[in-house]
Amino acid sequence: MGKVAVLGAGSWGTALALVLADNGHEVHLWAHRKSLADEINQSHTNEKYLQGIELPSSIVANDDLKTIVDGAEHIILVVPTKAMREVCGQLKHVMKDKAILTHASKGIEPGTYKRVSEVIREEIPSDLYEDVVVLSGPSHAEEVSRRQPTTVTVSAEELEVAKKVQDVFINRQFRVYTSPDLVGVELGGALKNIIALGAGISDGLGYGDNAKAALITRGLAEIARLGTSLGANPLTFSGLTGVGDLIVTCTSSHSRNWRAGYKLGQGNDLEEVLEQMGMVVEGVRTTKAAYQLAKNQGVEMPITTGIYRLLFENEAPRDVVDQLMTRIRRHEMEDLTNILDEKMND
Amino acid sequence: MGKVAVLGAGSWGTALALVLADNGHEVHLWAHRKSLADEINQSHTNEKYLQGIELPSSIVANDDLKTIVDGAEHIILVVPTKAMREVCGQLKHVMKDKAILTHASKGIEPGTYKRVSEVIREEIPSDLYEDVVVLSGPSHAEEVSRRQPTTVTVSAEELEVAKKVQDVFINRQFRVYTSPDLVGVELGGALKNIIALGAGISDGLGYGDNAKAALITRGLAEIARLGTSLGANPLTFSGLTGVGDLIVTCTSSHSRNWRAGYKLGQGNDLEEVLEQMGMVVEGVRTTKAAYQLAKNQGVEMPITTGIYRLLFENEAPRDVVDQLMTRIRRHEMEDLTNILDEKMND
Repeated sequence: MGKVAVLGAGSWGTALALVLADNGHEVHLWAHRKSLADEINQSHTNEKYLQGIELPSSIVANDDLKTIVDGAEHIILVVPTKAMREVCGQLKHVMKDKAILTHASKGIEPGTYKRVSEVIREEIPSDLYEDVVVLSGPSHAEEVSRRQPTTVTVSAEELEVAKKVQDVFINRQFRVYTSPDLVGVELGGALKNIIALGAGISDGLGYGDNAKAALITRGLAEIARLGTSLGANPLTFSGLTGVGDLIVTCTSSHSRNWRAGYKLGQGNDLEEVLEQMGMVVEGVRTTKAAYQLAKNQGVEMPITTGIYRLLFENEAPRDVVDQLMTRIRRHEMEDLTNILDEKMND
Repeated sequence: MGKVAVLGAGSWGTALALVLADNGHEVHLWAHRKSLADEINQSHTNEKYLQGIELPSSIVANDDLKTIVDGAEHIILVVPTKAMREVCGQLKHVMKDKAILTHASKGIEPGTYKRVSEVIREEIPSDLYEDVVVLSGPSHAEEVSRRQPTTVTVSAEELEVAKKVQDVFINRQFRVYTSPDLVGVELGGALKNIIALGAGISDGLGYGDNAKAALITRGLAEIARLGTSLGANPLTFSGLTGVGDLIVTCTSSHSRNWRAGYKLGQGNDLEEVLEQMGMVVEGVRTTKAAYQLAKNQGVEMPITTGIYRLLFENEAPRDVVDQLMTRIRRHEMEDLTNILDEKMND
């Protein structure tokens, strides 16, 4: 088994490092802070991000990027979307050999509205990688670290390269599939965080499961609408990286996007919430990016627009959700392809 | 406002009666047991089925079917699927005037594999009704009775008749849409109970949200496959009566199908579970019906088949779920239309 570098020692990066270690790989985990690298090497824990989990000693951490990537056949990027471009800028200077680059970050770059694989391709010269792969799916890090059954999807422009990543990660509990739809897999993972915020807001307001189910259903439709306009296959949004990831993120107490939404629904303002969370909440930035993307593409995204107003224009949570519930009355079935639309009444 | 008869004073029948009473209708609620009719009329409660809810005094209950339906413009049937044919057999003898028949029962008739609207049409002469309408969607009765925001869909062969039912039920919290896809709306509501059993089994085994999301995602795909083979529009399964109802049933502690699955996952046998529940668990009978329907139609339904074996052939819950998780490995994307299939790897 070869050397694998995992860049990012947050919850998800550490959980993926653990899967790779379980599979017998030599895992080198890059932690931004030296104190965290020391904790991982000495105590074999990462208490802030994976409380109570013992890490295998075959995971070696370091805060020096060059040491981490040296000789790695696979480099797994698990840094927040907003840090991706900067980390890639460093990475290209320390990479010597050609590697397979896989990212597991769910976001859209603010300002440029690029998918994460596009950011990586822009920053790293193409002679340094075989291909850029995405790994995504319904996968709470905490459950993966406890070896609970989990399914994820990998996708790349070259399906053969995605299959190599599948081989590296797959084991009995961690099931990995491939998909040919890179755009759909990346967008599903990013955009569902917006709807998770919305589901949290509804719960924080004290609304029930009926209201939340309506929001999730409509949310899935608008994610698919935007995704399709950007080149995704609409069917991808019915799969693990679409509805699967949406369900797990919207209904689980593990989800930090849901938790942030919940606090917003209870009346806390955005700054307070982000401070209390102390972790990156990708959905907040993704809402801004998707709001602009939807405008550029001329796609209607009422839930995203409502959450944008709540986050950045001080609209009250109750007003946003009530408007969305009433709006659904008029537009029940703007479905994936609008096939039924003409038949629907007002 | 006219007289509306609601047949069935369980949780859902009583909650729908309450919506109608809120809208100013004269509501006559048929309770099978005289003691329950007395409780509703005297205490204005239905403690067994809607604990802690005060019912409006404009809901009048009776155990005599003739009194209930006499002069009603709308008759709402909310009885268990297995009792539907018998109740319709009684109903046709006591109906005098033409009414709109709406049902809100989510099941498939055992043995005949008929949808509920088909059963009603077979039993009641067509000169006694304008049309047969279905009302379905993500709607826990408990939340509706507490006036929480809720969305449902009505559908019928004649969309104009469905609109009349929409007008009777709709209010600020209870949002009602119409759909032209009667078959899809009925099948989505019935079949999701099978997947809810599966989600409960996974939770009962101690598996996490990742595993449950995978099961729900695959479950949606197989429901849509069977539904489409029976004439439904595949897009209906992406709407409120499909994915919406599936989410609410699979992730909420209110759902009795999920609760029954949970107890099964914990190792209780079917008989014990049904006895403990003390209420109808539609998913158990629906599993049997769907298992046969899938065989007849030549449609693959691995989750339904697994649950059938658990319920009726004593297969162990852990074996069933583990087989399903492993199976997904081979068949990631047998999607709604199999469009992607050829491109997918094993």
